[in-house]
Amino acid sequence: MKNFADRLLEAIDEKQNPCCIGLDPRIKNIPQYIRDENIDKYGNTMEAVGRSFLDFNMGIIDATHDVVPAYKPQMAFYEQYGEFGVAAFKRTVEHVKRNGCIAIEDAKRNDIGSTSKAYADGHLGEVELCDATTKPSLDVDAITVNPYLGSDCTNPFVENCKKHGKGIFVLVKTSNKSSGEIQDKQTDIFGDAEKLGYVPQVFTDVAQLVDEWGRDVIGERGYSSVGAVVGATYPIQAITTRKLMSKAIILVPGVGAQGATGKDTIPNFNKDGQGAIINSSRGIIFAYQTEQFKRNEFEFDKAARESALAMKDDITSALKEAGILRW
Amino acid sequence: MKNFADRLLEAIDEKQNPCCIGLDPRIKNIPQYIRDENIDKYGNTMEAVGRSFLDFNMGIIDATHDVVPAYKPQMAFYEQYGEFGVAAFKRTVEHVKRNGCIAIEDAKRNDIGSTSKAYADGHLGEVELCDATTKPSLDVDAITVNPYLGSDCTNPFVENCKKHGKGIFVLVKTSNKSSGEIQDKQTDIFGDAEKLGYVPQVFTDVAQLVDEWGRDVIGERGYSSVGAVVGATYPIQAITTRKLMSKAIILVPGVGAQGATGKDTIPNFNKDGQGAIINSSRGIIFAYQTEQFKRNEFEFDKAARESALAMKDDITSALKEAGILRW
Repeated sequence: MKNFADRLLEAIDEKQNPCCIGLDPRIKNIPQYIRDENIDKYGNTMEAVGRSFLDFNMGIIDATHDVVPAYKPQMAFYEQYGEFGVAAFKRTVEHVKRNGCIAIEDAKRNDIGSTSKAYADGHLGEVELCDATTKPSLDVDAITVNPYLGSDCTNPFVENCKKHGKGIFVLVKTSNKSSGEIQDKQTDIFGDAEKLGYVPQVFTDVAQLVDEWGRDVIGERGYSSVGAVVGATYPIQAITTRKLMSKAIILVPGVGAQGATGKDTIPNFNKDGQGAIINSSRGIIFAYQTEQFKRNEFEFDKAARESALAMKDDITSALKEAGILRW
Repeated sequence: MKNFADRLLEAIDEKQNPCCIGLDPRIKNIPQYIRDENIDKYGNTMEAVGRSFLDFNMGIIDATHDVVPAYKPQMAFYEQYGEFGVAAFKRTVEHVKRNGCIAIEDAKRNDIGSTSKAYADGHLGEVELCDATTKPSLDVDAITVNPYLGSDCTNPFVENCKKHGKGIFVLVKTSNKSSGEIQDKQTDIFGDAEKLGYVPQVFTDVAQLVDEWGRDVIGERGYSSVGAVVGATYPIQAITTRKLMSKAIILVPGVGAQGATGKDTIPNFNKDGQGAIINSSRGIIFAYQTEQFKRNEFEFDKAARESALAMKDDITSALKEAGILRW
């Protein structure tokens, strides 16, 4: 069973691109011709939405799988549509893997012990059937995890990283404006911030937990399958989190629609030019509707490819400028 | 649109019972005859598991809907099985509502702004179809929410509470052993704990946020549709959280399998005998496999009813002893 961190870093080297595409479908942004085709087949139903998502995603994946190492489908957009959305999610993941790429599920799951195991087994491991045999279910390569409940809840996910060669990305510092309300709370006023080099806050405490949780799943390249999420919108905080969890691969959202630039992502990389994977969602998949990559709706996939190539260029240029580009 | 808190409190009064049943199906604990019937119909598939969950849940609901005001299906156990599990979840929720009871989804969801809206719309509101019309989807009465990401993420859920008469329960202090790792971090060492009456910690900060978030959705009975989760395993902490969010209805897990007793739940109630709903899952739905309520598998529903009545008796006795029983 190959270590997830090794798989991801190899895929990044192979494509010479540390970027992934967020597959966050919104029905109103999907080309009308795809929607119409599915209304014709399935009526104006949730099934038609799920099928439209899948058709759209397959178009994006077919046009970009030689550019990016990974895709990050955001479960919220699928689960919205109940069973039909989840079916589209699963088939999307299958198409990502069929094209030799890595599927990172953004779901921010967690729960207490035995329930957390149900999530970990369903998304990363195997589930029990009626006759007590087991089988993989959603079977993504990695999933994002919320740390609020603590170690005993995250353990079942880490166990499945070991057992099934999977990965997790734990929320450390999220990209949104109010992430600081809880994540930035100072937690150790008596700690020697000057000596530590940082002010202990909830998110730095979580970063330390990530480092601990990841110790048993370090791959041959020295990185752990327990990674973290740090928003590109907080580059200063990223300097600290990068140090506190030096072996974690950091999934970095917030570039593009949320306002961060390629340069803002640099603090999440280590000096070896590794250790981060940068995500962009709307800016790539709906590029055909943007000023910069405008195309007619039948060429949404071509626009996505152009946008993905531009993002690759943006990030690799920033890495080059920082003197840590590997290729 | 009737306020969720009012609906829940009325249902509790009607049944004279502040308890809900957690519908957390595990295939290995479901009667063999149900599994066999579904293997016959659907083969040894995930669909057979989903159908078994639904048959089992309907049996539990049919046998207990006159005893309890609400059910709390835990999404993890359904979602494990992809589209087939989610279909069973949705049909379970429909059966709960058809029987005049309230469906509280335990899913601990949250994400950043626009993605959080997708969750809020899918679970509590309406989703957009291919022709831009909208329709309710999972349509539960309330959902549990994780606060780690802050206000701008929780807002879309609160908006749907207002707009659709729904509720949320925000994780404040979870019932598991390692919940303290993050939730108990002291956050204001310079605060005057003696004057405040408590030590400011992450979970007390979250309790204050819950109080704020809930201010615009207070019903006629003086309670808010923004509730909280506080584990029965932490009765001391519950004294503080009860004070900090006096208008919140507190969903209290941890009784039974997790070791807390009826008496441990009392600090979560207000002096009016309202403001808490106590959950038990395994101890009720799989009562037929316990020493106390042992029955053959064909009578799993009768055992669940007996266990639900015993739980009602346990909690109401504790309320009576505390001098705050309403009925």
